[in-house]
Amino acid sequence: MSLTAVGSIAFDSVRTPFGERERMLGGSAVHFALAASFFTEVRIVGPVGDDFGEAETKVLEDHGVITDDIERVEGGQTFFWRGHYDYDMNIAHTDDTQLNVFADFDPKLSEASREADLLFLGNIDPELQSRVRASCRAAFAALDSMNFWLDSARKALTRAIAEVDCLLLNDAELRELTGEPNLARAARAAMELGPGVVVAKRGEYGAALSSRDQFFAIPGYLLEDVRDPTGAGDSFAGGFLGYLDSRRAAGDSVLNPAALRRAMAYGSVLASFNVEDFGTERVQALSREEIEERLRDFRRITHFEVEPVSGTPARS
Amino acid sequence: MSLTAVGSIAFDSVRTPFGERERMLGGSAVHFALAASFFTEVRIVGPVGDDFGEAETKVLEDHGVITDDIERVEGGQTFFWRGHYDYDMNIAHTDDTQLNVFADFDPKLSEASREADLLFLGNIDPELQSRVRASCRAAFAALDSMNFWLDSARKALTRAIAEVDCLLLNDAELRELTGEPNLARAARAAMELGPGVVVAKRGEYGAALSSRDQFFAIPGYLLEDVRDPTGAGDSFAGGFLGYLDSRRAAGDSVLNPAALRRAMAYGSVLASFNVEDFGTERVQALSREEIEERLRDFRRITHFEVEPVSGTPARS
Repeated sequence: MSLTAVGSIAFDSVRTPFGERERMLGGSAVHFALAASFFTEVRIVGPVGDDFGEAETKVLEDHGVITDDIERVEGGQTFFWRGHYDYDMNIAHTDDTQLNVFADFDPKLSEASREADLLFLGNIDPELQSRVRASCRAAFAALDSMNFWLDSARKALTRAIAEVDCLLLNDAELRELTGEPNLARAARAAMELGPGVVVAKRGEYGAALSSRDQFFAIPGYLLEDVRDPTGAGDSFAGGFLGYLDSRRAAGDSVLNPAALRRAMAYGSVLASFNVEDFGTERVQALSREEIEERLRDFRRITHFEVEPVSGTPARS
Repeated sequence: MSLTAVGSIAFDSVRTPFGERERMLGGSAVHFALAASFFTEVRIVGPVGDDFGEAETKVLEDHGVITDDIERVEGGQTFFWRGHYDYDMNIAHTDDTQLNVFADFDPKLSEASREADLLFLGNIDPELQSRVRASCRAAFAALDSMNFWLDSARKALTRAIAEVDCLLLNDAELRELTGEPNLARAARAAMELGPGVVVAKRGEYGAALSSRDQFFAIPGYLLEDVRDPTGAGDSFAGGFLGYLDSRRAAGDSVLNPAALRRAMAYGSVLASFNVEDFGTERVQALSREEIEERLRDFRRITHFEVEPVSGTPARS
């Protein structure tokens, strides 16, 4: 039972209608690793600069995340993103991106990271995603990406997608990737590229999963207070893959349909906690009990029972 | 067990990427009544012109819809709408609207229509909605509207909403009505206007229900082939209220939480059939067995089970 996450480690400065924060710990690998840490052993791989200190490392290590493969680039600065959200919190507006040490990132994975059972390839250059995939023995690899790579490196991205078992994308990006406006068809077209599992992330509307065995959809866990959606997709992926890895250790196949459905629910729950506060603040303070409680609540507010119908006209 | 539906009866000319049709039977009351007819006795109220013939009436009567209160305006023409959809089928583009007999519509309800247990006020002038509500004895009244009335008659609409038990609106319109960008807060604010039940329709993303007792959300039933979304919202309302009326007859309160959840699922199922073909074509040919089969399928593809977690680290 182990999971390796490769992606960005960042400082994020974010402004939303509900406040702002400067240089919070962020990045796709960080949000993913913290969410997954509630379920399994996670190794995080990514570069940081001199500005990445003990306080940041401690946040990860306090959650049991193994930080041996965080690469410290001397004299460098950590990847930095500044953005804001208006009242439509589904849309991130980027104000500044400084790649810094990320510009020359060449992932170096330790033996332990390469040996992990599951692999998460966060949103980075698809050439790097392919290279990391090839170097790892993971029985199950998942890839996340975004429209930036679709527009600038579609061929490399399509190759990288072909090499993984699971693709996670926003639904608009899935439509763009496949040229299919219909989501069900887009997911099927994406599976034809290689992955046996395709997850369409739909922001506040939830997520939909397609696999060879099933189709599954859940709405988002609706919150009255969304303070900062940054990292929600990576927290979703962390809950999703972290849970799957824990089930794998318990003897289930990663492709067990019931486990995949529950993994989608755990992903949604982790994403819902992520957006309740800025950056990693809420997930840092989270407990497994709170996760289980919200999972039960989520089930309650999304499930209906089918009963034999009585007292209706005998129409057919 | 009886349900009265007041709204538009129309001819629709629709073009989508998958074909086009001229002067199909349509309108909010028609889509609603056909969907509800699978569950309960429906009376339809609305004006038509000389161009509304026996063939159109027969479609309704073949489904058991009582057409006594269809008002035939001599020398008049039936309400006409022409519109098209591009690949984003969530957005209807209106090309032509001819109110015709609808411009002077003054609903006249028979004693039987006024005595119905449930009342559906389709998307018409909110002044008329209020007047009809006041004239009916229905124990439970539901209202649907749209941004046109929000923009042109907000005061009258707010009054009409205050007088009903259930409000159905698109989520964007619910946000506009309440000035609340967050859907959970918007639903709560809408309940403060009067209705004890608020349903946010979210197009392909499903629907969410808020009541004093519960919150409930379901995704849309995802289809590979969506040919014409016109009337989906009214078919949803028809399945939703039709089922609730049937449960009321069986002894349940309209506000029974389990019945409301199942009604949301039936609404989604009817909407999903509606969009499979142009106008009323698919719902006309539908059987109750097909509805029940899709309901079971819908449950299967949206439900997950919560299990005691084993094999995970003892983190908290």
